[in-house]
Amino acid sequence: MRLDDFSHLECPLARALDAVGEWWSLLIVRDLFYGIRTFDALRDDLGIARNVLAKRLKKLEAKGVLEKREYQPHPRRYSYGLTKKGKDLFPVILTLVEWANRWEAPEGPIIEIEHASGGHAIHPELVCGECKRAVDYKQVRLKAGPGAQRPEALPLPLRTK
Amino acid sequence: MRLDDFSHLECPLARALDAVGEWWSLLIVRDLFYGIRTFDALRDDLGIARNVLAKRLKKLEAKGVLEKREYQPHPRRYSYGLTKKGKDLFPVILTLVEWANRWEAPEGPIIEIEHASGGHAIHPELVCGECKRAVDYKQVRLKAGPGAQRPEALPLPLRTK
Repeated sequence: MRLDDFSHLECPLARALDAVGEWWSLLIVRDLFYGIRTFDALRDDLGIARNVLAKRLKKLEAKGVLEKREYQPHPRRYSYGLTKKGKDLFPVILTLVEWANRWEAPEGPIIEIEHASGGHAIHPELVCGECKRAVDYKQVRLKAGPGAQRPEALPLPLRTK
Repeated sequence: MRLDDFSHLECPLARALDAVGEWWSLLIVRDLFYGIRTFDALRDDLGIARNVLAKRLKKLEAKGVLEKREYQPHPRRYSYGLTKKGKDLFPVILTLVEWANRWEAPEGPIIEIEHASGGHAIHPELVCGECKRAVDYKQVRLKAGPGAQRPEALPLPLRTK
């Protein structure tokens, strides 16, 4: 089996991983957030082979994470932009950045996040959108949802002792 | 270059990706949250080759995401458990689950998250840990932190139009 094919796993995490394609593709999403939008600019920034980049872009486009837009007809030129689905990956990127700043930055954070209006640095945390209480693995319970095909096979609940 | 070697990139996201190893490894972290702890149980659940699983576990152990614990001396048997650093990946997993529930579950969420105390489903959102305002890509600004070696080379700010 292909190691990056998670589709056989009935798990939303596996589906998310499958949809994004691979770790590496998140760097493309990051670059699009930075406004790096053309094939050549992405290639220069990421320093990877053209065929590999082309394959990743095609996958992200097929999954609806980004869209290709013609910005010049003769000669035909395209740029890439995040869709709503792609922009919705921002919290994923941010939680990874926060994790790295905490655990993989012995010399201090490389990048800090601030409110656009100025002021203090942001250390994002996850809260329940409804009651605004913090969401911690010790305080949540998972249950099978309406999309579960074999609810009895889900290895719930979380046990992290 | 190895596609999964991000260490040349001065970016906390790249460091996080490098530390976790690859997408696929998050499924190991998920299984440890579920209490699946031995090599054979992990192998059974993930359905992958022993040598591949061994390599991933070794990498996660080297990066301090999990630790190996002897639970039986004769014959020697080990289990795996998340460290504090590993458990701190929970928000990453949760934001990916939420993303998949929103975008990759046409038949409804496979798994729903609830408060352990019961009550309503949780749709996690990111807020600033200090002022509790929502953290949205339109409302944040990135700046070089103390760990940036070449601050002038960072492609800030975010531009997502």
